[in-house]
Amino acid sequence: MITGKNYIGNVLSSLGTKTYKTFNPQTNLENEIVYTEASTVEIQVAVELASKAFKIFKTVSGAKKSNFLNEIANEIEGLGDELIKTYCSETGLSEGRAIGERGRTVFQLRSFANLVKEGSWVEATIDTSNVNRQPIPKVDIRKMYIPLGPVVVFGASNFPLAYSTAGGDTAAAFAAGCPVIVKSHPMHAGTGELVASAIINAALTTAMPNGVFSNLNSSGIEVGQILVKHSEVKAVGFTGSIQGGKALYDIAAQREEPIPVFAEMGSVNPVILLPKITKSKGTEWAKTYAGSITLGSGQFCTNPGLILGIKGEDLDNFILVLSEEIIKIKPTCMLHPNIIEAYENNKAKMLEQKGLETTASINNKVSKNYGRQIVTTVKGATFLANINLHQEVFGPFSMVVQCENVDQLEEIISNLEGQLTGTILGDENELIEYSEIISLLQNRVGRIIFNGVPTGVEVCSAMVHGGPYPASTDSRFTAVGINSIKRWVRPFSFQSWPNELLPIELKNENPLKISRLVDGVKTSKSL
Amino acid sequence: MITGKNYIGNVLSSLGTKTYKTFNPQTNLENEIVYTEASTVEIQVAVELASKAFKIFKTVSGAKKSNFLNEIANEIEGLGDELIKTYCSETGLSEGRAIGERGRTVFQLRSFANLVKEGSWVEATIDTSNVNRQPIPKVDIRKMYIPLGPVVVFGASNFPLAYSTAGGDTAAAFAAGCPVIVKSHPMHAGTGELVASAIINAALTTAMPNGVFSNLNSSGIEVGQILVKHSEVKAVGFTGSIQGGKALYDIAAQREEPIPVFAEMGSVNPVILLPKITKSKGTEWAKTYAGSITLGSGQFCTNPGLILGIKGEDLDNFILVLSEEIIKIKPTCMLHPNIIEAYENNKAKMLEQKGLETTASINNKVSKNYGRQIVTTVKGATFLANINLHQEVFGPFSMVVQCENVDQLEEIISNLEGQLTGTILGDENELIEYSEIISLLQNRVGRIIFNGVPTGVEVCSAMVHGGPYPASTDSRFTAVGINSIKRWVRPFSFQSWPNELLPIELKNENPLKISRLVDGVKTSKSL
Repeated sequence: MITGKNYIGNVLSSLGTKTYKTFNPQTNLENEIVYTEASTVEIQVAVELASKAFKIFKTVSGAKKSNFLNEIANEIEGLGDELIKTYCSETGLSEGRAIGERGRTVFQLRSFANLVKEGSWVEATIDTSNVNRQPIPKVDIRKMYIPLGPVVVFGASNFPLAYSTAGGDTAAAFAAGCPVIVKSHPMHAGTGELVASAIINAALTTAMPNGVFSNLNSSGIEVGQILVKHSEVKAVGFTGSIQGGKALYDIAAQREEPIPVFAEMGSVNPVILLPKITKSKGTEWAKTYAGSITLGSGQFCTNPGLILGIKGEDLDNFILVLSEEIIKIKPTCMLHPNIIEAYENNKAKMLEQKGLETTASINNKVSKNYGRQIVTTVKGATFLANINLHQEVFGPFSMVVQCENVDQLEEIISNLEGQLTGTILGDENELIEYSEIISLLQNRVGRIIFNGVPTGVEVCSAMVHGGPYPASTDSRFTAVGINSIKRWVRPFSFQSWPNELLPIELKNENPLKISRLVDGVKTSKSL
Repeated sequence: MITGKNYIGNVLSSLGTKTYKTFNPQTNLENEIVYTEASTVEIQVAVELASKAFKIFKTVSGAKKSNFLNEIANEIEGLGDELIKTYCSETGLSEGRAIGERGRTVFQLRSFANLVKEGSWVEATIDTSNVNRQPIPKVDIRKMYIPLGPVVVFGASNFPLAYSTAGGDTAAAFAAGCPVIVKSHPMHAGTGELVASAIINAALTTAMPNGVFSNLNSSGIEVGQILVKHSEVKAVGFTGSIQGGKALYDIAAQREEPIPVFAEMGSVNPVILLPKITKSKGTEWAKTYAGSITLGSGQFCTNPGLILGIKGEDLDNFILVLSEEIIKIKPTCMLHPNIIEAYENNKAKMLEQKGLETTASINNKVSKNYGRQIVTTVKGATFLANINLHQEVFGPFSMVVQCENVDQLEEIISNLEGQLTGTILGDENELIEYSEIISLLQNRVGRIIFNGVPTGVEVCSAMVHGGPYPASTDSRFTAVGINSIKRWVRPFSFQSWPNELLPIELKNENPLKISRLVDGVKTSKSL
């Protein structure tokens, strides 16, 4: 069923000459299927089709978009074992993880299906006319969100389903009314093609225009660059490294018509250990964090890579227990030889930094491509003085910083780059006592967690997955949850427009019975 | 009362050596007061104060921010005649316009005061925990909008009150909880200082932290550049030229930490004359447009600089009447010698373009600094082939494009740059007949108007003042209306946070009785 070809709209195509294979990190062997990278012509056709499809897709009703999204979810489930097996063979992740991530993916699709079926998300706002107003009459103005246009989505290496082909970015873009062109992630091209086939089948079943979706294979950076530069592309979604995301952001900003790029990039997700809890529950939290740091071999955007505490016996105990616990955990397979190579290189670079000490690490031989966890520690002053220590090491790596005192802890937090999350471990009174720390941390993160772990990103309306740069390129949006649709839409006003010709969401009769703001009052009534 | 100094927080200061004066275009003389440009030290202090003030201001309640905003409005009104006279002496605009714009300005401030007093704008969203959920318990997550941090605002030359010192950008930023540093517009530095004094008085009266506002004089581009590059500045608001806005956008994108710039820039605001109405009401619309083109000497972002119709007798008649009517209108004073010089230069450059013909223009001598209106016409094919003809001529200039047929009209619309507005003059049936034109125009604009003029931007919730680049640098936001607050805020999640320590908007008890989304249901009840 996997062909190795691109979907250029509804058509399987392989005009290119560059080919590649995916890799099974568990067996340490290449998988068999050969993928053909999209050619310049295919990229051009995919964008042209998307641009044409947009004309129709932007007018498709919420109910029909809802059917499309639900059908994609059904089709993905219908892929059954082939999807799960392909997923595992391209990632080294477990079947349980594959099934869980598939569940998350279809849940996201169905959440957006419900959102657009109900329809109030467009934030319809109506200010009626007043011909008697002095000195000049007031005109009728009606506003709603409309889609931006074709969106290019770059999938994540670490979430082949939930943040890739039909992941959050794509689901949100479809819900918004934007055609999507996926730049397929080369590490899981087979998973990508299967999911792409599910989207294409769903598009055909629900009569969506050809070009509403394309899936382009690519093993390098060229395909993505051409897409982001293309004048008909109107927005970009990306999940991955700072280097990759910033490169796309720069290309987009330098276009003749700059376009928005929402890139969710790296983060070290600082965890602040407050003194009292370090004393009372340090041992317990150390055990929990050993699990959080090694979860999925540390391959999560929200992995806790930095733990900050005040030096002393209690922190020593925390480090000791964390160290003892973490080496008890069996190393697991990482996604790809490139990922493990980067992990080992970045770890080695970090260990070269003066003052960084290893408190626990797996040094014995492990299976090929398995990630060996490590805990390190460093003095606060050393950390402050060396920006290299602030960088993310993607994998099961964490660093405990032993601050001299609270002032130094505050200084470190103030100097952190933007983060997806920040966690406070403390007792409740300490939240008041250290309110300055909370305030400083809030300025640097998108989500703040009390007595928990940052790994685990609940898909819900209240979730913010994003944060100040470089956690994301625009902290005003989230990548997870239904509000992520806001990335792909813009407000649009109709002035004095005839009622019969207004979009259904703005008509006097309010046929969808959506919640609207009419002359300053929220109502689902008709005018 | 005007000192010519900067407000560095609450303190009047003039450490710099560079000075300048404002200019009265009606008398063609410099005004007397000498303004001292902010020095590097003053800029640095202003940003540091803003950064410190942010710590406090971000926690100030909606009720107190509301008092602050209302007090600014009161203080502005309290400036009385001095403000109106200074405004007129720095702009050449009429007293009536000054009073009208002051009304708009205080209305905006009071609209934001009401918004933050009520409080639901933070979009509080609560997903409660479920400890029994399988396979893992669901955590409690609560989200709301929080302010980005210090915002730099660049005022507009053409709106010294409504889009400058205490204009829409500033009012929205204060409402959001962001301190503001205004880069004062050199053409109306006196008006700016008076309004700044009103803001400072209001800040003192309502006990806002020192640094919540600074006003920096500047006659060149250096002050603005330093501000946008400063690491403690977190967002930028700008209203002005494409050149100026794009330069700031580029600086902000190239920072170590890129920050959002909302720049509302130029637009030619295309008007589409559909055939039937050109026949039935062409004369009437021509008269109306003669007024719209010359309103305020054409110095509006939404001035109709481009009129597109299908060639023939009816369009000829429209051009004839527009030409006859427009020269009947008395030229009025433009804002500044630089503005009129730019107008005359851009007009001259436009007239050098091959194929552009003048159908009406004021050629006789007018008072110094008065803008002489002109109507030009060009063939559709010529317009399509020459991008120079697409540029904005800021002032009382308009161009009628005579398209060969509907296909050419569509092609022209497809090739337009992003616009603030697009207007359709037609009868209702024509909206259906020419639905392709409407669809294409929608892709290029932020607001679409039926049978009206684009000048006149109602301050209301349903207004979109923005649009695809280069109308603005980010079409996902509006510069006018209460939703413009979204430019200066980001969503923020609290996970498992103790109820007592949550912001008031997210507490179980919902003390403010704001509308919230709780487990997917809109409610103003407590949990």
